Amino acid sequence: MFWKSLFPGAIGSETPTGIGEHELLITEFVAANGERIHVYFSTTRDIDVYALEALCDAVGWAKRPLRKVRKALEFSFLIGSLWQERGQNRRLIGFARATSDHAFNATLWDVVVHPEVQGKGLGKTLMRQMIRELRREEISNITLFADPQVVTFYEELGFHPDPEGIKGMFWYPS
Amino acid sequence: MFWKSLFPGAIGSETPTGIGEHELLITEFVAANGERIHVYFSTTRDIDVYALEALCDAVGWAKRPLRKVRKALEFSFLIGSLWQERGQNRRLIGFARATSDHAFNATLWDVVVHPEVQGKGLGKTLMRQMIRELRREEISNITLFADPQVVTFYEELGFHPDPEGIKGMFWYPS
Repeated sequence: MFWKSLFPGAIGSETPTGIGEHELLITEFVAANGERIHVYFSTTRDIDVYALEALCDAVGWAKRPLRKVRKALEFSFLIGSLWQERGQNRRLIGFARATSDHAFNATLWDVVVHPEVQGKGLGKTLMRQMIRELRREEISNITLFADPQVVTFYEELGFHPDPEGIKGMFWYPS
Repeated sequence: MFWKSLFPGAIGSETPTGIGEHELLITEFVAANGERIHVYFSTTRDIDVYALEALCDAVGWAKRPLRKVRKALEFSFLIGSLWQERGQNRRLIGFARATSDHAFNATLWDVVVHPEVQGKGLGKTLMRQMIRELRREEISNITLFADPQVVTFYEELGFHPDPEGIKGMFWYPS
């Protein structure tokens, strides 16, 4: 939980600063020892599947075969990641991805922020960036399937549950 | 509505016969003039975007830019189509497609059966074949967003609305 001790020294602004097309400085802090800590959003950085699964494990998600995780990353339309950086040290602290037909529809999956840095607005920032990227690609229909405890989180971002009575449905063998 | 006049002479079986990996004879009829009519399911046939949009138009869906329709077809993971054939004459009468990460999740879009041939179980057959193909690709999570009037149709196929309280959500600009 070392992050929390850094926040009192935060000097970051709320408006992310663009650096390059797909890399964004989200916020900046000064640690107690004077070291600068940055948080970046990226859509282009390589995702180490072990780091990703460690992140998912930290929020209690079930383990997944790495072969399938690699394939899912390869065939996702958009991958967004949040990184905490101190000097050369870089750590994956957030992740989201979207499947899409590259034209009309995108569906978000595996939205996760590390428990140590939750409650600081990083999840919302991550999602806003994902929406921005999908809109930039002219995707008109952005969808997701939300667990009950995060429906409000997504509503605050502009997502609507069951619009016009449309039901999210999952198939199980009958 | 010429189809209806053919059904009394139907000789088709209920169990589809496999022909090749991705082409399936769904049913067979004899027309009043003795001509044989076949209905095929395919996952490999080229889809003419004009024929597809005519099919979607027949069920009252909004027109879409053909450029985007082409792109959506190109980047869909699975495209299923139903064809009615008399001799050399071939007509697109059903369609469904799925986006996917090729590993965990697939989402079905644009499920449509021509109004002239609705109510004969072709929609269910189409969906069962889509599910079979996705399961064959080891997709564990098959999802869709159902308009209120087709929720029961999908329930009969083994789809569950809001399982464990999971909510389908759509983003709109706030």
